Amino acid sequence: MSYKSYNYEGLKKLCNIVFEKFGFNHEESENITDVLLLADLFGIESHGIQRLVLYYKSIKSGLVKLNPKIKIVKETPISVVIDAGQAIGQIAGIKAMDMAIKKAKNSGIGMVVVNNSNHYGIAGYYARMAEKEGLLGISMTNSAAITVPTFGKEAMMGSNPIAISMPAKPYPFLIDMSTSVVTRGKIEVYNKRNDKLPIGWTLDSEGNDNSSAKDVLYNMSNKKGGGIVPLGGSEEISGGHKGYGFALTVELFTAILSGGLTANYVHTNGVSGTCHSFIALDYGIFGDKKAIESNFSEYLNEIRKSEKAKGKQRIYIHGEKEMEAYEDKIKNGIPMNDNTLKEIDEICKYFDLKMDDYIIQ
Amino acid sequence: MSYKSYNYEGLKKLCNIVFEKFGFNHEESENITDVLLLADLFGIESHGIQRLVLYYKSIKSGLVKLNPKIKIVKETPISVVIDAGQAIGQIAGIKAMDMAIKKAKNSGIGMVVVNNSNHYGIAGYYARMAEKEGLLGISMTNSAAITVPTFGKEAMMGSNPIAISMPAKPYPFLIDMSTSVVTRGKIEVYNKRNDKLPIGWTLDSEGNDNSSAKDVLYNMSNKKGGGIVPLGGSEEISGGHKGYGFALTVELFTAILSGGLTANYVHTNGVSGTCHSFIALDYGIFGDKKAIESNFSEYLNEIRKSEKAKGKQRIYIHGEKEMEAYEDKIKNGIPMNDNTLKEIDEICKYFDLKMDDYIIQ
Repeated sequence: MSYKSYNYEGLKKLCNIVFEKFGFNHEESENITDVLLLADLFGIESHGIQRLVLYYKSIKSGLVKLNPKIKIVKETPISVVIDAGQAIGQIAGIKAMDMAIKKAKNSGIGMVVVNNSNHYGIAGYYARMAEKEGLLGISMTNSAAITVPTFGKEAMMGSNPIAISMPAKPYPFLIDMSTSVVTRGKIEVYNKRNDKLPIGWTLDSEGNDNSSAKDVLYNMSNKKGGGIVPLGGSEEISGGHKGYGFALTVELFTAILSGGLTANYVHTNGVSGTCHSFIALDYGIFGDKKAIESNFSEYLNEIRKSEKAKGKQRIYIHGEKEMEAYEDKIKNGIPMNDNTLKEIDEICKYFDLKMDDYIIQ
Repeated sequence: MSYKSYNYEGLKKLCNIVFEKFGFNHEESENITDVLLLADLFGIESHGIQRLVLYYKSIKSGLVKLNPKIKIVKETPISVVIDAGQAIGQIAGIKAMDMAIKKAKNSGIGMVVVNNSNHYGIAGYYARMAEKEGLLGISMTNSAAITVPTFGKEAMMGSNPIAISMPAKPYPFLIDMSTSVVTRGKIEVYNKRNDKLPIGWTLDSEGNDNSSAKDVLYNMSNKKGGGIVPLGGSEEISGGHKGYGFALTVELFTAILSGGLTANYVHTNGVSGTCHSFIALDYGIFGDKKAIESNFSEYLNEIRKSEKAKGKQRIYIHGEKEMEAYEDKIKNGIPMNDNTLKEIDEICKYFDLKMDDYIIQ
C-alpha cells in the first residue's frame, strides 16, 4: 500500500464542504473538520480523514443525529452533566470543554460529563482546548467494547483514551493514549494495509494471541469474543491489570458519572451512547502560574537531556512528536494511502465534487 | 525463605508501641500503624511491616522530622497546598485527605497537594478514606527516581502510584498501582527472598534487560543508571510510552502543582521532599449517588460474570483481592518472612521489648 502526501488546506476545504453535504451547518462542519484533521496533522492517521466514511455511515444509519437536542441535565458551579442527544462527538465535545473551561476560570475547576454522544475523534483535541487557555486539560471517552479484562475473553471496556495537556515550553505537554495497548483505529489501519498485527496486541475469540487484524475486527464488531488487550498485556506479571484498571477508571469518569452507557452497551440496539468526560483545572489555585509552568518545563527538559539507552538517540516528551509532525505536515502535506483516497473519491463522486480541486499533492 | 503468619492484633500493638518509641505521639503512632498494617492486610507485603526498619532509619538520618511544622501555603474553597515540614508521609497524608474530604463535602471537590513530605505507605489508604465517606477518592505520590523514561537509561520518575477508590458492592472499587511495571518495594521483597526478577521489569546501568534485584537496587540507590521500566515495557510497540506518560502525570499532580521536588531531586541533599496529591469528589454533583453506585456495581458484576479466557476461572475487579486478603489475614494472621522477623527482633531488643509478647502465631 502506497502513501502520498496532500496539501492540508485542500483537505480542510474538502472536509468542510463534505460535512456540510452530510447535513451539518457551517460552524459545525468547521469544528468537526478541525478535530479530524488535527489527528492527521499530529500523525494519528487512525483518527483522521480515514474516518470520513465511517462518520457518513453513522449519519445514514441514524447513530449520529443532525440538529441534535443537546440538554444540560444538571449543573453546579464546578460541574455539568450533558445529554448530547446523539450529536456527533466533536460538537458535544467542543461544547462540553468550552463549559469546563468557563467553570475553571470562575471556580478553579470545571468537570463536564456527557452521555448519549458519538465518536469524538482524538481525546487530545479537547485537552488542548484547555491548555490553550492556560489551564490543565483532561479528556476521556469510552467507546464500543473492544478491550478484554485481565483473564477474560469478552471485550467489556472501550479503547478508553485519557488525554492530558498542560502548558510547557518549548512544546505543550500532551498525553493522548488509549488504555488498551493500541486503539481500534490502529487495527483498522493495519487491516487496510494488510499488515500482520504484532503479538501481544489482540486476542482471538478463545482468548489466545492473535495476529489477524481482519479477524479481530470481525470478532469485535460481531461480539464473537476476543479483542484488544489492556495496556500492560494479558497477564498480571507484566501489569495488564493496571491497564485494565485505567480502562475501568475511564468508564467510571465517563459512563458512570454521566449516567450513560458503559462500553458493553455502547453501539448496541441501534444507538451509540458514547460517553465523555472533560476537566479543566486552573492551576493558579495552587500557586503562581508562571512558576508552575517554568518548573514543569525545566523538569521535562532535564528528562530530554538525561542519558539515553544504548542505541537510542532521543528521549521524547509527550506532545513533542505531535507538534513536530504538525509543523511538518502543514508544510509538506498529510499522507494518505490508496484505500483512504479511494473512499474519498467515492464520497466526492456521490456529492458531485471534483476531487482534484481539493486533493492536491 | 520461609513465611509464618502472625496475629494482626499483636502486630498492631507492637507497631503502636514501636512508633511511640521512635518518638511519635499516641495518635500519630496509631495512624502510621493503621496505614502500614493495611498494606499487610491487603497482601501488599512490600509496603507493610517490612518497612519498619526503613522508617526508623529515616528518623535517625533526619529525613523524617518528629513534631513537624505542617504549614498551609495556599487555600481556596476547593484546594489546599501543604508544606509537610518533612513529616512522615502518613501524618501529612491523613491530614491532607481529611481536608480534601471536607472541601468535597462543601464544594463538590477537594484537591490537596503536599510538598516536603516523606514515604506515605500505600496510596490506596488515602483513596479509601474518601471512599469510606461516600466520595470518589484519588491519591498519588512521587518518590525517589526509580523509573526510566522510554529510550532512556537514567531513572527520572518515581514509582508514582495512582490510587482510585469508589463505593461499590459487594466490594469498594480500589485501584492502587504504580505507573512503573512494579514498585521498588516489590524488588526489595525479591532481593530479601534472593529470587531472580522476571525479564521486562528492570534495566541495568546500560539500559539492558536485568534480572538481579540486588544490582538494580544498588544502581538506583547510588544513581548508577538503570532502574524500573514504565508500565507497558521499555519499547513503544508494547505501550511503554503510556506508562511513562502516566508517571509524568503523577509528577505533574504532585511535585509540579505543589511547587515541590520532582523525583530526580527527591532523596538528594539529605532531604526526602516527597510530594503527594489527594482528590475527593462528591459525585452527587453529577446525579443521584445511590443510582451512580448501583450502576457502577452492576457494570462491575457484568465484568465478573463475562466469559473467561481458556484456563482462567475468575475475572477480578480491582479491590476484590485486597478485600478478600483483608478478611483472610484478620482471621489467619499476617505472613512475615525470616528476614523481616529478624529485623523486628532487633528493633524489639533495641527498645527492650519482648518480641514474643506481640509476635504471636
